[in-house]
Amino acid sequence: MRPSERTPNQIRPVSFTRNYTMHAEGSVLVEFGNTKVLCTATVEAGVPRFMKGQGKGWITAEYGMLPRSTHSRCGREAAKGKQGGRTMEIQRLIARSLRAAVDLAALGENTITIDCDVIQADGGTRTASISGACVALVDALTYMRTKGMINANPLKHMIAAISVGIYNGEAVTDLEYLEDSEAETDMNVIMTETGKFIEVQGTAEGEPFSYDELTDLLELAKHSIREIIDLQKQALA
Amino acid sequence: MRPSERTPNQIRPVSFTRNYTMHAEGSVLVEFGNTKVLCTATVEAGVPRFMKGQGKGWITAEYGMLPRSTHSRCGREAAKGKQGGRTMEIQRLIARSLRAAVDLAALGENTITIDCDVIQADGGTRTASISGACVALVDALTYMRTKGMINANPLKHMIAAISVGIYNGEAVTDLEYLEDSEAETDMNVIMTETGKFIEVQGTAEGEPFSYDELTDLLELAKHSIREIIDLQKQALA
Amino acid sequence: MRPSERTPNQIRPVSFTRNYTMHAEGSVLVEFGNTKVLCTATVEAGVPRFMKGQGKGWITAEYGMLPRSTHSRCGREAAKGKQGGRTMEIQRLIARSLRAAVDLAALGENTITIDCDVIQADGGTRTASISGACVALVDALTYMRTKGMINANPLKHMIAAISVGIYNGEAVTDLEYLEDSEAETDMNVIMTETGKFIEVQGTAEGEPFSYDELTDLLELAKHSIREIIDLQKQALA
Amino acid sequence: MRPSERTPNQIRPVSFTRNYTMHAEGSVLVEFGNTKVLCTATVEAGVPRFMKGQGKGWITAEYGMLPRSTHSRCGREAAKGKQGGRTMEIQRLIARSLRAAVDLAALGENTITIDCDVIQADGGTRTASISGACVALVDALTYMRTKGMINANPLKHMIAAISVGIYNGEAVTDLEYLEDSEAETDMNVIMTETGKFIEVQGTAEGEPFSYDELTDLLELAKHSIREIIDLQKQALA
Amino acid sequence: MRPSERTPNQIRPVSFTRNYTMHAEGSVLVEFGNTKVLCTATVEAGVPRFMKGQGKGWITAEYGMLPRSTHSRCGREAAKGKQGGRTMEIQRLIARSLRAAVDLAALGENTITIDCDVIQADGGTRTASISGACVALVDALTYMRTKGMINANPLKHMIAAISVGIYNGEAVTDLEYLEDSEAETDMNVIMTETGKFIEVQGTAEGEPFSYDELTDLLELAKHSIREIIDLQKQALA
Amino acid sequence: MRPSERTPNQIRPVSFTRNYTMHAEGSVLVEFGNTKVLCTATVEAGVPRFMKGQGKGWITAEYGMLPRSTHSRCGREAAKGKQGGRTMEIQRLIARSLRAAVDLAALGENTITIDCDVIQADGGTRTASISGACVALVDALTYMRTKGMINANPLKHMIAAISVGIYNGEAVTDLEYLEDSEAETDMNVIMTETGKFIEVQGTAEGEPFSYDELTDLLELAKHSIREIIDLQKQALA
Repeated sequence: MRPSERTPNQIRPVSFTRNYTMHAEGSVLVEFGNTKVLCTATVEAGVPRFMKGQGKGWITAEYGMLPRSTHSRCGREAAKGKQGGRTMEIQRLIARSLRAAVDLAALGENTITIDCDVIQADGGTRTASISGACVALVDALTYMRTKGMINANPLKHMIAAISVGIYNGEAVTDLEYLEDSEAETDMNVIMTETGKFIEVQGTAEGEPFSYDELTDLLELAKHSIREIIDLQKQALA
Repeated sequence: MRPSERTPNQIRPVSFTRNYTMHAEGSVLVEFGNTKVLCTATVEAGVPRFMKGQGKGWITAEYGMLPRSTHSRCGREAAKGKQGGRTMEIQRLIARSLRAAVDLAALGENTITIDCDVIQADGGTRTASISGACVALVDALTYMRTKGMINANPLKHMIAAISVGIYNGEAVTDLEYLEDSEAETDMNVIMTETGKFIEVQGTAEGEPFSYDELTDLLELAKHSIREIIDLQKQALA
Repeated sequence: MRPSERTPNQIRPVSFTRNYTMHAEGSVLVEFGNTKVLCTATVEAGVPRFMKGQGKGWITAEYGMLPRSTHSRCGREAAKGKQGGRTMEIQRLIARSLRAAVDLAALGENTITIDCDVIQADGGTRTASISGACVALVDALTYMRTKGMINANPLKHMIAAISVGIYNGEAVTDLEYLEDSEAETDMNVIMTETGKFIEVQGTAEGEPFSYDELTDLLELAKHSIREIIDLQKQALA
Repeated sequence: MRPSERTPNQIRPVSFTRNYTMHAEGSVLVEFGNTKVLCTATVEAGVPRFMKGQGKGWITAEYGMLPRSTHSRCGREAAKGKQGGRTMEIQRLIARSLRAAVDLAALGENTITIDCDVIQADGGTRTASISGACVALVDALTYMRTKGMINANPLKHMIAAISVGIYNGEAVTDLEYLEDSEAETDMNVIMTETGKFIEVQGTAEGEPFSYDELTDLLELAKHSIREIIDLQKQALA
Repeated sequence: MRPSERTPNQIRPVSFTRNYTMHAEGSVLVEFGNTKVLCTATVEAGVPRFMKGQGKGWITAEYGMLPRSTHSRCGREAAKGKQGGRTMEIQRLIARSLRAAVDLAALGENTITIDCDVIQADGGTRTASISGACVALVDALTYMRTKGMINANPLKHMIAAISVGIYNGEAVTDLEYLEDSEAETDMNVIMTETGKFIEVQGTAEGEPFSYDELTDLLELAKHSIREIIDLQKQALA
Repeated sequence: MRPSERTPNQIRPVSFTRNYTMHAEGSVLVEFGNTKVLCTATVEAGVPRFMKGQGKGWITAEYGMLPRSTHSRCGREAAKGKQGGRTMEIQRLIARSLRAAVDLAALGENTITIDCDVIQADGGTRTASISGACVALVDALTYMRTKGMINANPLKHMIAAISVGIYNGEAVTDLEYLEDSEAETDMNVIMTETGKFIEVQGTAEGEPFSYDELTDLLELAKHSIREIIDLQKQALA
């Protein structure tokens, strides 16, 4: 039995609130149950130095947790003077995933910066971030077309992400914190609306996992991601 | 005429939403018009080293802006690897003000950390932060009494803060960004519910200001702070 | 009774020694009793990136304390790897004040960097810094005219600063360390030679202060600043 | 055709040179073709603060590249003043994988620090690091038993790792740099000698990948890892 | 001909002003011509962690240059966020030299921190620092005896330092900036009052130097150091 | 008697292995007994900003120790976030020495970066680094001539370095760690193949040293360096 009494393949209530803040070109509050992340997309003309002159755009991402988004207060990284390894790892993942959703050539020499800031954490912040960021990205691309910065739509396909894992010996989807901290295996899956994989990251937290367990988890993920992509599309409609 | 068509002594709509997030001992979203700041108060047993053994508590504060809380994206301080001078200055002010509102001896050897994170900025983020933080602090003190960490109420008086300034030659209250960026003089005032001053910071941005202008600004501030303290009390009722 | 047996409105012996060191375009040792600060002004052609192309100059400031300028040794910020919040706050104040004394357009695209390094501290280092820096600035501006870098004199008015406070229930001027560390209220005031305010920063260290106390402190400050500006002018004569 | 004329499931010549340096409790030079990594294991009594009093040990890891291990010189992270995101990500992966190979309770309150320093890079440095580190770890555990620091063998199973990917439309194993930089999909797989997964990380560098491609890659990885574990065992015999 | 018209073995006017500032246990302004360094010695009970429990004391040093001690402004290291290699090298040299002058066992478990801050630079700041620091150290040791922190005098011998070099093909002593920046060989020599060497550091800036040149330089240094030690003793008398 | 039973003027077995790694323009593993340092030379077109437009080249150096090159693990500087004073001092010495071996004008506006990474430490790492780096430098210069980047050979003379010291009252050459940590005096000497000095750094670790001891040490150093330069030439033949 899951703490929330959900069935193994049941995701938490998921919502995407667009235009959550007023300054960003895309601004989405994504909620997966009690996990709440503010995803903004910032459009800037020009690209970083290493991309110049190739006629292509760039997408980058930064991730942060508000100090009291967590059970006990996690120190503010700005005060510590550096971003931790977990933060670095997550923001690299977010950026990589979104770049895989976009035709960078069609973006022109423009940069989109995705900021994912966790307002409240209850497991699955990185996959919620990616799912929310994709919606913010779509809004930012629409803004660019409206402003005449691009002509075609650079989006190749929507993407969404989910965390799945083995909890109490059973494969379950969309782990909340209580499950996540006890899971034997934890897997983050990012897929396209066409059912293909962008990224698969599975980790044995306790015992190593078998090929069959891996297969079960991927199946669960595929199903949940399809649901999330439907919700993204409804929000964007 | 003010951009928002407010009268000189009219503050923006102000609201305090308590329990805005679920983990912190005090969590308040404060809104002054479009300025929105999440203020949380974290209670921890023990005090920093320099306070140990004095039987007194401590209150500290940290301040941050989400990267896209502003018109154009301001860089993430965690990524830059240090907090800027403005951030330092503001978080020192917040902490100092709240310490002046509390009897640290009655707090026992406990620490309260105030985090003020700007979700959306439209002028007056530091004064909104102080006003919101005071409400979060009251909730955290109530939590401490409930948990038996303290017996008496350490709060000496509510405090609130407002930004006032000379805009287009006239003293106005609660400057929004458009006014703030054009003001000749900018003053942040922090007062108690008993009408006394905790802090006064007035700066000539352009021309130096006269004693009479200073007097007018303080009068405006006093009036607005009284209104804000009423709203704090309603929110806490 | 004040520790130094001064009357409430009596400042300490104040002196300005010009050309204290030989390399800087302006170099002044300012002394307020035992507080001694070396203020230098460095002239460089060009302005920081964010000012380029506006035809205006820039004034910036840095502040530091020699490790053993204080009673017990304060750590060297260069060794710690960052400037503390107090340092940041003070150097921002110094720079802002001096910019308010100068017509930046008349300065042309040149930068003046003010360095205030505390040789010996006994209270009031930030206000002594500002008072001394203004003299160094005047010398630097004279240097610029001599070298043909500017034609007109960009100085709008002399400025000076003083620290005032409530000590043992009484408003006193020019607090030395013993008074400063015990004061209930501490206020730094920066004024022009024309008797107008550049900056007012009053802080309740213990009990909040009343409007009447504020008025008394401003009156004291005005009187002392007039004396200091006379001494600046004598030094420059 | 692969640049090295290897068949798709052919790994490069792999070797493990034990006791490569004289001070470390375990010291292994691992070579996968031209990729050469020095893996050392350092044994220290005690555990980090967050692990104290649990009667369990800890394994941590650090990763670095010599500046000229790469085609063009990569900046020295010590000189830059921080470790990059890629380094952080890799050293977290190495540590996590090795902890999954060890019964931390049987390790007692001791810490093993794994250092993986890339002497020469030609693709697959992170998987070579893990494969080599496992051998160094075994030597360090033997040292601990010899010294009486532990009684039982804490090793649960050998682990090894391989990089596989889709190159020119075909699934190939043990990618060298030329292949890695062109691969459409890149996957790092870490498995136990019992054929179970410790970690799977697959990334679409260009086009998203299908379930069938994922399956092919995992099959290749399983086969190669079996070969590597045989070589580890021969080296340890 | 030397720029200052000095003879090859003539040092600049050297002076030691004791009690230059009021807080430090030893405080000396040392002047070698236009080079002026403030050397303070701070006494603190206790030793750094790595020295604990050995019954011995410790001497450490820090060095800094005021930003405008030099011809053109050198950046403030506190603002840059790190001490440069030259600073590190110099402060290690100062500390090492002074430790060689003191019987650390006789110092007890106390630490003396030497701060050398360059007020004005005109060549030879590191050797002036050492010469001045030795006087400040003697004052600090006297303070310790007065306070009963130590019984015997831990000073083994006075030390002093001089910079010598090959300038225009001739060996000269006490190089000022103009000479230093043109010298083919530059040598810093630190000796005891008994005529023995503490440190010799000779560097070929241009052409390598011969054994005979080395011998000439050492002879010059020996002579100058004897003069400086006489002046130190006069100052301390 | 020396721990290794060497005679006072006997160096350890010294070897230079060229082309040790495949990417660098010069790559030499230098061994002095158990001390092993990988020295690479990287050639890049262009010079640092402060050298631009002078038609001259630049040589710089960086030094590092692998964490477990030492008896007990020394922390990784990249993880600490800064290079220590010893590292800074050594890499400045390496760079300075090599620049003294080269006609920078003949190098053209190109930069050579020397990296010296200690694989295993047993005393004398800085002098081994310089001796090995000179061989790597020669290979890099040959590379530059082959590629047509330079026409003439910029090498003025080979250089080599040795550590000598007073151990158990006797002058000995090429100190290994056991000797180095007990030596009363430690001296690093860098000379040209023509028998002239590039750098002499002698330090009294315990008692000050006499002129005669200095002379003995220099004589020993001269003899050893001649041997090392012979070995460098054999390796390059």
